[in-house]
Amino acid sequence: MASPKKRDNQRWSESELILNISEIFKASSSDLSDRNDTTEILVGIGDDAAVVARPQAPVVITTDMAVEDVHFKINWSSAFQIGRKVAAANLADIFAMGGKPKYLTVAMAATGNEELTWMLDVARGIFHEAEIVGAKVVGGDLSRSQKVVISITAIGECERPLLRSGARVGDEIFISSLPGWSAAGLTALQNGMVGSELGFAISEHQAPSVDYDNAEQMAKNANSMCDVSDSLLIQSGQMAEASKVSFEIDGEALKAHPDFAELLAVANLLEIPVFDLILSGGEDHVFMATGSGVKGFPIGRVVTGSGVKLINLEEPAAGWQHF
Amino acid sequence: MASPKKRDNQRWSESELILNISEIFKASSSDLSDRNDTTEILVGIGDDAAVVARPQAPVVITTDMAVEDVHFKINWSSAFQIGRKVAAANLADIFAMGGKPKYLTVAMAATGNEELTWMLDVARGIFHEAEIVGAKVVGGDLSRSQKVVISITAIGECERPLLRSGARVGDEIFISSLPGWSAAGLTALQNGMVGSELGFAISEHQAPSVDYDNAEQMAKNANSMCDVSDSLLIQSGQMAEASKVSFEIDGEALKAHPDFAELLAVANLLEIPVFDLILSGGEDHVFMATGSGVKGFPIGRVVTGSGVKLINLEEPAAGWQHF
Repeated sequence: MASPKKRDNQRWSESELILNISEIFKASSSDLSDRNDTTEILVGIGDDAAVVARPQAPVVITTDMAVEDVHFKINWSSAFQIGRKVAAANLADIFAMGGKPKYLTVAMAATGNEELTWMLDVARGIFHEAEIVGAKVVGGDLSRSQKVVISITAIGECERPLLRSGARVGDEIFISSLPGWSAAGLTALQNGMVGSELGFAISEHQAPSVDYDNAEQMAKNANSMCDVSDSLLIQSGQMAEASKVSFEIDGEALKAHPDFAELLAVANLLEIPVFDLILSGGEDHVFMATGSGVKGFPIGRVVTGSGVKLINLEEPAAGWQHF
Repeated sequence: MASPKKRDNQRWSESELILNISEIFKASSSDLSDRNDTTEILVGIGDDAAVVARPQAPVVITTDMAVEDVHFKINWSSAFQIGRKVAAANLADIFAMGGKPKYLTVAMAATGNEELTWMLDVARGIFHEAEIVGAKVVGGDLSRSQKVVISITAIGECERPLLRSGARVGDEIFISSLPGWSAAGLTALQNGMVGSELGFAISEHQAPSVDYDNAEQMAKNANSMCDVSDSLLIQSGQMAEASKVSFEIDGEALKAHPDFAELLAVANLLEIPVFDLILSGGEDHVFMATGSGVKGFPIGRVVTGSGVKLINLEEPAAGWQHF
């Protein structure tokens, strides 16, 4: 019943925004024809709901919401980076189940005072990240709020789900890459530190470069797998508890990682113990898997008992907690 | 890296909340064994993502976000009603495509100052609404924000998608019930009006009673179908445009609806023209379909031309706009 009143601060109309965002997400399949694009959209953006072809396998579903000033800051990250980061969090969860993401929905709330280009850059960031894995945005919702909120749901296919509860005594523990960069970048941003040595860490905090291909390879021989989104310690603890085993993580093995020296240099610049970054830093979306012959970097093994045992190092502060 | 600090205002822990919410959503399938529960959850809440059995048909997906003070007010609605309302908006979209919802994910942000029971009642409201249609919540995410934000994604199966673009010249136009109640309830709440005559309208605004069974019946013979979430005028305009036809809506037909007299009495109490409520009120999640022999109440017909033609009444103010 509210008659449509022109808001003084309205720089763009909802319909203009939707039209532009739809164009970004619809970027034609032909653009992706050289990619591994196996999506088949029967009804796309613009109706009550999207409809996609019947999947070939069980369906894997995850959702992740990011809130301004909790998960990202508009002064610290570009809109494109924010879009990438929220999409990555969802896509990583699908790969961590041994699945392949195919479709995304995006619900976003904003103040209405944003520039149109800023809003569209969020969409471009989401599209960019989805395109890496051949996934498509099929639907969305726009709303108003005092802070920007982006909620994405990723849907994919998963022939053989890899659970956190699948770790077995005797498994080796593998990671896809060394975590800690995002936490280092956050610390740098919080302290207003810049410099070329910190560039990679800051960029990883703004939008992590998730190694999706590696995750697919890791999944092949894994007994269990997980997205290290909170921290290596927290997710190790969760996997250990779910599998009723103990995760023994070896500090010397972590030190042997080819990126360790570089992260150590960053940690020294930031005056933080490097193992605080590695063990308690979150949001890198590193993958952790257990098994034997898993493609990844070995950092320990699954033993009888419970909880996480750190060998060859001291326990750092506990991990990231948003809520 | 942030060490887990006890917040002074923290009345419950995140893990306590997650555990309790999971229990609500997991309410066993046996409770639903007498219902048409065709969901098959292979991996439920608690891992990186959920995994469900391979669907029998194409998959229909929708998402809808609700923001405190934009879509609901905490002083006006109970937590249970808020949960129901957001779930209903998503479920209705699936039915409006001719689909059947099976799985939901729920992402929710809250201040952290809410009572645990309030948070759990939101979950109970979502569960309640999902249970009506035999759908299950399979995953979620919790976050912090200054205002409560709830984003739901509904996933279902859809053998024959019913598009907004399917209306054909000669079709009759049908509605599942008379819209306007939610808008009437909102007006009553905005003006601090109470009274038994307004009770139904207020309750419909707080959480609409969506006739999902009727939607399933309507879909059978429909050429096109839509969820009237913004308003009858707006959605008629969208269907007319998508179908390249004109929607002719007959005021005399609407007056003949069995609930018209009751809505008219409410409109008179509120001192609003009743057709403003019917044509421009949103959020009832009434279903509109076109075709012949469709189960529903006929309110007009599809003719050549474009746009919406109102016959036997004057055009009211344009519909609801949130953004």
